[in-house]
Amino acid sequence: MDSANKKTALRMISHGLYLLTVQGQGRYNASTVSWLSQASFEPPLVMVGVRVDTLTHTILEESRQFAINVLALGQTELAQTFFKHAEYEEGELSGYAFESGPVTGAPLFLDAPAWFECKVVDVVKGGDHTVVVAEVVEAGVRDSDITPMALRDTSWHYGG
Amino acid sequence: MDSANKKTALRMISHGLYLLTVQGQGRYNASTVSWLSQASFEPPLVMVGVRVDTLTHTILEESRQFAINVLALGQTELAQTFFKHAEYEEGELSGYAFESGPVTGAPLFLDAPAWFECKVVDVVKGGDHTVVVAEVVEAGVRDSDITPMALRDTSWHYGG
Repeated sequence: MDSANKKTALRMISHGLYLLTVQGQGRYNASTVSWLSQASFEPPLVMVGVRVDTLTHTILEESRQFAINVLALGQTELAQTFFKHAEYEEGELSGYAFESGPVTGAPLFLDAPAWFECKVVDVVKGGDHTVVVAEVVEAGVRDSDITPMALRDTSWHYGG
Repeated sequence: MDSANKKTALRMISHGLYLLTVQGQGRYNASTVSWLSQASFEPPLVMVGVRVDTLTHTILEESRQFAINVLALGQTELAQTFFKHAEYEEGELSGYAFESGPVTGAPLFLDAPAWFECKVVDVVKGGDHTVVVAEVVEAGVRDSDITPMALRDTSWHYGG
């Protein structure tokens, strides 16, 4: 396989940007993720690729639950913040205020226009990201009048 | 869970549009799919949600391989064609010419700007779509100077 062709073709997959958050035994973390898709209407499932060598992966694997915070077009700084390690202080991660998810306890950022909480139903390992398949168990909308941030709206690439 | 909130939040996930094609024992099929994401850089994996009650699902399950044809902005008619059952004639599906993928034999549409072929490594069942995790084994680019079609570029919804 020609690696340039592979890279070009895979970068044509449309991805968004989200904050995946976790909570377990009093530890909180958030990571910006891009590889997320719905996976079933009934039951409502999503699938997400989670980088193996991260604290988020560790906590997610133990707690078997997480939340997805949707990002709106323009929330570039918020997305960028969680490319790196998150700093926890009472009710905040890296300076962004959150409330705890009603089902999972995972952080729901007050600035995110919408969120949903998920319980893991299965995982597929073997790559540098784990495929996590999870059922959506709770959801909330703070602002429905937004355009979600897509990767193509940014100067970043994640794929190839 | 409030079903309106669930629908609104899940419809904020960014999805694209692709033609997933299969070949097995001389049968060919194509389906327009939206729930696709990369899932690992190394090895290069993708994950895709495939509707259970379809011929594409049946052939994919037997052959354990498939191809993804990327769609460019503007290829609305091509996308719409494979919402419904595909008609096979020598070298064509529903009137669109294809060549057979070098590894999988799955249709590669001549009009698609790029394609990649995949071999299934694992599946997760349980929803109305099966989560298929697959390794990218071959790829080709016919036109790199395109914008891929995202679901938000169309009048269609698939999610919620």
